[in-house]
Amino acid sequence: MSFTVEERGTLHSLNYRLFFKNTDGKYVSPFHDIPMYADESQNIFHVVVEVPRWTNAKMEIATKDPLNPVKQDVKKGKVRYVANVFPHKGYIWNYGAIPQTWEDPAHKDEHTGFCGDNDPIDVCEIGTKVCSRGEVIKVKVLGILAMVDEGETDWKVIVINVEDPEAKDLNNISDVRRLKPGYLESTVDWFRMYKVPDGKPENEFAFNGEFKDKDFALGIIKSTHKFWKDLISQKTNAGELNCKNTCVSPSDSPYHCSVDQAKAIVGGTSPSGKEEPIPSSVDKWFYYERK
Amino acid sequence: MSFTVEERGTLHSLNYRLFFKNTDGKYVSPFHDIPMYADESQNIFHVVVEVPRWTNAKMEIATKDPLNPVKQDVKKGKVRYVANVFPHKGYIWNYGAIPQTWEDPAHKDEHTGFCGDNDPIDVCEIGTKVCSRGEVIKVKVLGILAMVDEGETDWKVIVINVEDPEAKDLNNISDVRRLKPGYLESTVDWFRMYKVPDGKPENEFAFNGEFKDKDFALGIIKSTHKFWKDLISQKTNAGELNCKNTCVSPSDSPYHCSVDQAKAIVGGTSPSGKEEPIPSSVDKWFYYERK
Repeated sequence: MSFTVEERGTLHSLNYRLFFKNTDGKYVSPFHDIPMYADESQNIFHVVVEVPRWTNAKMEIATKDPLNPVKQDVKKGKVRYVANVFPHKGYIWNYGAIPQTWEDPAHKDEHTGFCGDNDPIDVCEIGTKVCSRGEVIKVKVLGILAMVDEGETDWKVIVINVEDPEAKDLNNISDVRRLKPGYLESTVDWFRMYKVPDGKPENEFAFNGEFKDKDFALGIIKSTHKFWKDLISQKTNAGELNCKNTCVSPSDSPYHCSVDQAKAIVGGTSPSGKEEPIPSSVDKWFYYERK
Repeated sequence: MSFTVEERGTLHSLNYRLFFKNTDGKYVSPFHDIPMYADESQNIFHVVVEVPRWTNAKMEIATKDPLNPVKQDVKKGKVRYVANVFPHKGYIWNYGAIPQTWEDPAHKDEHTGFCGDNDPIDVCEIGTKVCSRGEVIKVKVLGILAMVDEGETDWKVIVINVEDPEAKDLNNISDVRRLKPGYLESTVDWFRMYKVPDGKPENEFAFNGEFKDKDFALGIIKSTHKFWKDLISQKTNAGELNCKNTCVSPSDSPYHCSVDQAKAIVGGTSPSGKEEPIPSSVDKWFYYERK
């Protein structure tokens, strides 16, 4: 199973949208239509890459827009970039989300004591390659970090692309610690500090900022898949989320959308244009005393 | 005084050359013709930026080529990229050189006990902005690191662009330590490790890897300017170095080159072409246990 993307609007502007298509050329939602599992028996998951490593534009699946294209987050009317917190440049992994998962904002997590953040579960892919925006990759799960962001649970799953040259050597969180020394510590630092340059408080973590292992991570992912099933079947109220989909069986979801409706949604967005340059202010490095 | 650049050949290929011109449109050597001082009374120096921050292509002033364009270093017949050593991405400063300086390979440095590396003195510019390749900036000197690379002295001068918003607060090496915590430690780590992924030994440092202050740095720079004066006046044998210049007084240098000769040199290089992509192997991150 493979997917392609179609760009609409102007990169780094408010109207940029990245739509997804399956191999039949049918538009699909990266939130609802791409299967969570690439191979259930092997615990191989799909990941939708939102932000390539070393970039700053905060791109994300637009959970409230029809067909959930990837678009750039907006803050005070402007497209949003994450600041560089020294020694890091941009995001330090290929960052994305697992489709068909949902951190339910009405469910209080037993580990963190806080409810979900209303998004699909986030992923840090730690492989060798820099992925492209909108790439759909197959990953192994290695561990998980329990971030708490202003009173919301926001799990970060650590994964590696199954096609990575080192994937066979990385099978659990302890392998990351051994083979990529410093990466896990940097990951916690990154998430703790990344919004501080914007005047926000440091993020916090359950389990004292320690990573949980693969099996724990698989349990969390599976629970977010259950929440998504309740969402897509309308057992849970969707609130502002847009659940239109083209591939979930209409018997499982009342939000089914036809191929022609989907085409009309994409056709109604801005046509593709030349990209906007990234403002030079994004190049600033912010320095903080280490904890 | 300001300078512009003219690209020839194909970026990221063997034939790429970046030539320099002064405001009269005359070709100049960035090694010999750009004055070392932008303002001698204020100890403001010119720096030729060879490698913009966060990039990997090892661009450098071609000391052995006529007019000394910037070109990409070559290793085993291929253009050279520095590896990413975690947590760093590419060069972590705007990296370049001070014109009209030379680390004399026949002079044994009293501090390191090793001779010079036959290049103009290297610079790490630590300002906010990402400079462009070939940009000629004006800098304040803050301190210096004594690197020893396989038995050669290779000083690294720490500077800041005088136009940086924080330049007024940065006047000595202690200000860097205070305002940019971690940057100096990362700088030593970077230089120690950057060739290890290529199978080379770690670099070493005089003074136990400690930075010397502004006044010490100014003394070293001035001594390398004297070595350059002896070079350009042919008091010292130039060896393989190319000392052609268009701006040094012919009474001070036997290597003077006319405007027409300079044009012919540039005209003899490959015309400008579309750039080559950077190989994806350059994206790999290398991990080592911290010392």
